[in-house]
Amino acid sequence: WEGEFFPNISSIKYEGPSSRNPLAYRWYNAEEVILGKKMKDWLRFSVAFWHSFRGDGGDPFGSPTRVWPWEDGSDSLEMAKIRMRANFEFIKKLGVEYWCFHDRDIAPEGASLQESNQNLDAIIALAKKLQEGTNIRPLWGTAQLFKHPRYMHGAATSPDVKVYAYAAAQVKKAMEVTHELGGENYVFWGGREGYQSLLNTDLKKELDHMGTFFKAAAAYKKKIGFQGTLLLEPKPQEPTKHQYDWDAATSISFLQKYDLLGEYKLNIECNHATLAGHSCFHELEVARINGVLGNIDANTGDSQTGWDTDQFLTNVEEATLVMLTVIKNGGLAPGGFNFDAKLRRESIDVEDLFIAHILGMDSLARGLINAAKLYTDGTLSDLVSNRYASFDSTVGADIESGMVDFDTLEKYAFGWGEPTITSGKQGELSKKNVESP
Amino acid sequence: WEGEFFPNISSIKYEGPSSRNPLAYRWYNAEEVILGKKMKDWLRFSVAFWHSFRGDGGDPFGSPTRVWPWEDGSDSLEMAKIRMRANFEFIKKLGVEYWCFHDRDIAPEGASLQESNQNLDAIIALAKKLQEGTNIRPLWGTAQLFKHPRYMHGAATSPDVKVYAYAAAQVKKAMEVTHELGGENYVFWGGREGYQSLLNTDLKKELDHMGTFFKAAAAYKKKIGFQGTLLLEPKPQEPTKHQYDWDAATSISFLQKYDLLGEYKLNIECNHATLAGHSCFHELEVARINGVLGNIDANTGDSQTGWDTDQFLTNVEEATLVMLTVIKNGGLAPGGFNFDAKLRRESIDVEDLFIAHILGMDSLARGLINAAKLYTDGTLSDLVSNRYASFDSTVGADIESGMVDFDTLEKYAFGWGEPTITSGKQGELSKKNVESP
Amino acid sequence: WEGEFFPNISSIKYEGPSSRNPLAYRWYNAEEVILGKKMKDWLRFSVAFWHSFRGDGGDPFGSPTRVWPWEDGSDSLEMAKIRMRANFEFIKKLGVEYWCFHDRDIAPEGASLQESNQNLDAIIALAKKLQEGTNIRPLWGTAQLFKHPRYMHGAATSPDVKVYAYAAAQVKKAMEVTHELGGENYVFWGGREGYQSLLNTDLKKELDHMGTFFKAAAAYKKKIGFQGTLLLEPKPQEPTKHQYDWDAATSISFLQKYDLLGEYKLNIECNHATLAGHSCFHELEVARINGVLGNIDANTGDSQTGWDTDQFLTNVEEATLVMLTVIKNGGLAPGGFNFDAKLRRESIDVEDLFIAHILGMDSLARGLINAAKLYTDGTLSDLVSNRYASFDSTVGADIESGMVDFDTLEKYAFGWGEPTITSGKQGELSKKNVESP
Amino acid sequence: WEGEFFPNISSIKYEGPSSRNPLAYRWYNAEEVILGKKMKDWLRFSVAFWHSFRGDGGDPFGSPTRVWPWEDGSDSLEMAKIRMRANFEFIKKLGVEYWCFHDRDIAPEGASLQESNQNLDAIIALAKKLQEGTNIRPLWGTAQLFKHPRYMHGAATSPDVKVYAYAAAQVKKAMEVTHELGGENYVFWGGREGYQSLLNTDLKKELDHMGTFFKAAAAYKKKIGFQGTLLLEPKPQEPTKHQYDWDAATSISFLQKYDLLGEYKLNIECNHATLAGHSCFHELEVARINGVLGNIDANTGDSQTGWDTDQFLTNVEEATLVMLTVIKNGGLAPGGFNFDAKLRRESIDVEDLFIAHILGMDSLARGLINAAKLYTDGTLSDLVSNRYASFDSTVGADIESGMVDFDTLEKYAFGWGEPTITSGKQGELSKKNVESP
Repeated sequence: WEGEFFPNISSIKYEGPSSRNPLAYRWYNAEEVILGKKMKDWLRFSVAFWHSFRGDGGDPFGSPTRVWPWEDGSDSLEMAKIRMRANFEFIKKLGVEYWCFHDRDIAPEGASLQESNQNLDAIIALAKKLQEGTNIRPLWGTAQLFKHPRYMHGAATSPDVKVYAYAAAQVKKAMEVTHELGGENYVFWGGREGYQSLLNTDLKKELDHMGTFFKAAAAYKKKIGFQGTLLLEPKPQEPTKHQYDWDAATSISFLQKYDLLGEYKLNIECNHATLAGHSCFHELEVARINGVLGNIDANTGDSQTGWDTDQFLTNVEEATLVMLTVIKNGGLAPGGFNFDAKLRRESIDVEDLFIAHILGMDSLARGLINAAKLYTDGTLSDLVSNRYASFDSTVGADIESGMVDFDTLEKYAFGWGEPTITSGKQGELSKKNVESP
Repeated sequence: WEGEFFPNISSIKYEGPSSRNPLAYRWYNAEEVILGKKMKDWLRFSVAFWHSFRGDGGDPFGSPTRVWPWEDGSDSLEMAKIRMRANFEFIKKLGVEYWCFHDRDIAPEGASLQESNQNLDAIIALAKKLQEGTNIRPLWGTAQLFKHPRYMHGAATSPDVKVYAYAAAQVKKAMEVTHELGGENYVFWGGREGYQSLLNTDLKKELDHMGTFFKAAAAYKKKIGFQGTLLLEPKPQEPTKHQYDWDAATSISFLQKYDLLGEYKLNIECNHATLAGHSCFHELEVARINGVLGNIDANTGDSQTGWDTDQFLTNVEEATLVMLTVIKNGGLAPGGFNFDAKLRRESIDVEDLFIAHILGMDSLARGLINAAKLYTDGTLSDLVSNRYASFDSTVGADIESGMVDFDTLEKYAFGWGEPTITSGKQGELSKKNVESP
Repeated sequence: WEGEFFPNISSIKYEGPSSRNPLAYRWYNAEEVILGKKMKDWLRFSVAFWHSFRGDGGDPFGSPTRVWPWEDGSDSLEMAKIRMRANFEFIKKLGVEYWCFHDRDIAPEGASLQESNQNLDAIIALAKKLQEGTNIRPLWGTAQLFKHPRYMHGAATSPDVKVYAYAAAQVKKAMEVTHELGGENYVFWGGREGYQSLLNTDLKKELDHMGTFFKAAAAYKKKIGFQGTLLLEPKPQEPTKHQYDWDAATSISFLQKYDLLGEYKLNIECNHATLAGHSCFHELEVARINGVLGNIDANTGDSQTGWDTDQFLTNVEEATLVMLTVIKNGGLAPGGFNFDAKLRRESIDVEDLFIAHILGMDSLARGLINAAKLYTDGTLSDLVSNRYASFDSTVGADIESGMVDFDTLEKYAFGWGEPTITSGKQGELSKKNVESP
Repeated sequence: WEGEFFPNISSIKYEGPSSRNPLAYRWYNAEEVILGKKMKDWLRFSVAFWHSFRGDGGDPFGSPTRVWPWEDGSDSLEMAKIRMRANFEFIKKLGVEYWCFHDRDIAPEGASLQESNQNLDAIIALAKKLQEGTNIRPLWGTAQLFKHPRYMHGAATSPDVKVYAYAAAQVKKAMEVTHELGGENYVFWGGREGYQSLLNTDLKKELDHMGTFFKAAAAYKKKIGFQGTLLLEPKPQEPTKHQYDWDAATSISFLQKYDLLGEYKLNIECNHATLAGHSCFHELEVARINGVLGNIDANTGDSQTGWDTDQFLTNVEEATLVMLTVIKNGGLAPGGFNFDAKLRRESIDVEDLFIAHILGMDSLARGLINAAKLYTDGTLSDLVSNRYASFDSTVGADIESGMVDFDTLEKYAFGWGEPTITSGKQGELSKKNVESP
């Protein structure tokens, strides 16, 4: 494949809310400053290589529907190089600075691990060259430890020690190449770290193995001088019936138990949050208050379906809440927003790829503008702090410092009598929340 | 109310599987020895006072349907005493040795906390007298911190310091009277410890307050010399949109963070497990391998409805899995099985109360018999241990002790080549599982 | 109670989007003309008496939290009259023209059906007087056939013929008084028409009884000259495990089977739609294309909880889709939007009642503005009609008229060869959808 | 591939409940007579060709794991013939008499429809030969209208008239070959008959097209003299967000609207039932009382996951309820039980295929034995008929014949006064239900 991949599409520009051009931004204005920071620095958007360049529209009941014009249908190294060039043209035309990858989506699996590593090296060399003279670099890299049948019983949690070692070697290499490309984070999504049936599973042993694996990964990071953040990506179900990194709280529990809290943060994915029965806002806040909000996989699900649909997030209310957490967190850097979102099976044109990303970016940009207004306005934070004002008293402060025992508290309770309860004012809060710029 | 409460029902006897008497046990044979322990010692059944004697069949769309013959509809102290006597007659006729209670379901709320305490004292005195000369005692007691409007924004997590103190005083008293009656455990179910909207909530502050509260509770337990186990009861939703003790993993995460792991265990309720997207078996195993399986609230939900139905557990397969964990745990003592299960709204006869409990007891007894066969048979555990045999090698042992780094693992992986993967044999396992005695 | 009920709140006015007054409309401008019709005529807002004046904040785990200032806690006829006066003041201050009621929420249940009817007559007389000189009238009335224990096994589907007759008498009276007040519709929500267990249920018999009941109701409507529309309100679950009017398709199936399609339409409630696994938009469209879209119960649920939360609809995207159907339907009259939505348990101030309704009205008004733009713009409808353009051919038209058999179709298929498939363009569509005014 | 496909496995025999041989039946005893009919005639088991011989263990996140020894990985006609021979050996060794197929899983898709038809003819000729001298024949055949990209927007509901014609031609051929092989039913599962987004969909037009399509199919059946039953297979979601044949009630509604009720029955799949929020028992009963219970796709789902897992049904309680409906229906013939169930991705041995089917067959056989006991015993049916006894009165009979108007019913209601309500006795019923043989 020679020449341009998207010859009919030029760089996407900001045209403002009144534009009706589907290939322009209406809300995302990269250089616009919001709360002291440029939009692009709040958002740090990233293209997901796998969805954009390896997604083919196949589903459990259907064959692939989408063949990009430059695809020859092979899994050759040559084809892998062509795809990587397409990736960079796409990133540039979109006007973002980050991309994310799995080792096996950018380079073909070889006949042996050694050969797979060589294939990967060849592609990384190309990517490095394509990065030259640009600000583009990986938001994060990762190893694909879920697709190959060798991982069908797990990777770090496989009952087979050989698979455990294979997974370690694959992560080792993936971390090295992420480092090589200047990647800012490294992600672990344990697609097969879970169980299909508890009846054939030694739950404790598998979790212990996973703990040991993550310790070794953190040690290796230090050894090679990689400064990026290591991130666990929680997901409750799919593909296994029960994934070990179920949600933020479960992942934090795991990190605590295996003494890894200082070494890892979380990559929160909105669709994973809702599959676990939480709002995305909830998962983000749980990560934030525990100091482990590292990155966001920006997508959304269908609230009526029970599986991971990886849709581009378009609901302005949801985007506003997401950005509210990001503002409270002071931003996400070195993390960002990775579009772990895929075209619908029926969207098969190259322009659909642009339109979908523009839509996702505009939605989050609009969420940022809304959230900034909510934040600056202060009525929301005032309402919250007023609710807890009684804990600013001496007794409250003593309680918060853990100094008040039950005997003392009982004395207060006897003395104070029945408390007067005030309205939670949830209606008013919600009202403010739906305001638009 | 004078005389017997259930004059037409005598003590329930074991009659064996072929019995067609609805008021007899078919599987529960208290003194029968299974795996070296009497059935009654494996199961330690408990009657839940609230469902059995305060449940009235009301639901969000309907008025109460059930009025026990001895009820005058009042919330008087006199009526409370009558109910307590009914409770003991029921326990004795059923042939169990435990009961569970909330402070406010056994005694009326007074005009002040002091008066509430006096009411409670009066009922506790009666209960103590009724316990005399019997083996009956509380499996656990607890404070009802969710029904009264003062707790509408939370108890330990209320934004109002006065409510926090009130809750502490109520727990203090409930723990004292549980101790007084020889109760073996004390439970915390945080019915209002959660949020309805994150927009008006300071998540970190609320969780910090909850941590402080639980520390003070553990300290008070020691102060009064209460030897019982303190138990958190996870539940994901209902009544709040998001309960803080979401599931076992989340509760363990909380206990870790606030350094409470040695002080608290968990009370796993099956219906709460399924509402959180887990099987009951899963939640029990998570608690077991973390050393915090303290008690089971034996019930089940309707897998097609999205709220807590608190039905008596009757599915033999589910009961078998529950008992498999209990056997692996070496039993539950000092915990047991509390029937946190209620009659359907349309079941309004006193005999229904007996039939429902008999059904629940028989189901778990049958599950115990099945699980003991599975356990003794050994094919299940053999299958599991065979799956992990490769970790019994030198390399496997080194990995398990945390001594193998990524460089070494990569060398092994290069040397070993592609692993051979074996069948998970889930079909066969499941097959064994459905065997009946 | 004398004088005003809401002395500190005056009539709610439109102040435009930039207003920050929580007691003003930002989007709802009653007299503004959209697509040739006034906003108030598109929206026909109605206050639900039960939520606004009988809702007390109680839930399955908690006592009531909300006591309006004028409440004496009794269920007296005198209290009922006070509430009705409050209702009219509220309606007027809000600036709407409709209200909805159940017979038993506006007037107390008496010791006998006759006495209940007398109580109802007294309140209806008052309501009629309060309506005089205003444009206010009931959007719809209904009979409460789910709260009283007599209906615990069903009303029209009760196994007891006496309950069936009682329900018929109650509906008869409720229809009469709705007619008396100039009500424009009459609703049937079968809160107990369903089953808790199929094991004790004769499904066919119950559905046959329900069919007979609805036939008699339609006949009675004609007899008394009531011109209002009869409406079934689908709901899948809650309070029974399985409600017979599960969703729109199931209700239509029922109406077809019992030859009632010409006599009844549907009242679609958004929260009921999502509990059934559908979007609200879906249920509205199913009703619309079957010619039975009669009314909308405007609320929304929490997409992470499994029960009916009856929240005010605030999501602009959802509101836009709802209004898109309404526009396609040419409006809803004689139906409208009934706020079957309740204050959160923790919202206990009278101003919360206003704020919540304002929020709900503004959201739908904004949805109307958006939907009108989408509709006028035409790109959405063009995209749809273009997709089906091939059916405008001769063959397509023949197929649509049902004249093409499989032999002929096979000949076409052989001749045409492999069809060329085009992109579904879902990304672009969604993008347009999130546009705001 | 020459010789036997399963050389180490001989014909599966009945060995009774105490057998521990995983390759023997414990409950399924084909010739045993239950309620006047042989087990094999109640159950009419069928092997699903696609799961057993085309299932490869792939999932949305993973490559195939399972390669049967005789597979060369190609989609050649030669390979198709080998698979068909394996199918017949499997059926014979299992000792069943039916199989089910899609046109495209037994024969490869050609370069044109004509070539696909030729491929199909070649395989059908082989299958016919293999059937000779046996009692084996298709329980049903069907056309695969969901896998190929041409169907991505629907088949009968495609917006493209060419796809509609193509689908018709494919169904025509599939019906012919099913007829040729002596198949007893023909199934329609509309895997792409639904929508992904309502925004680009003309719902009415698509349903109208589907109605026309089904009319033409019924006409074609008559034309070729095929006597088999035509069956719709309801499913709510997956692969589309919303499948048109959502559940039994929706499908019946569709058949009514398009006047097809006399021509079609339903094929109820248990996992589809639960995805729609119903129990399998519910869907079966809805089909039964509407006279459209035609066939059962025997499988089950995981009640904690939100997608179609197609597991073998093993829960004895569920199997008992399924068989209770079948007994009430007088059996299923000419329908039967098709094992639309797949091995778990991790079960990769050929013996797993046998074990899984044996497990599924034993479970349903055991369910049959239990259900027959419940049925014969009569306590269950007595309890139900007693509940409705009041409708055996003159008034009740008049109501059931539709002759009682609201005026008359009101007179009765006034006269009878408050009804006395009796207990629903659900506890006792459930108790009986869990009894085992």
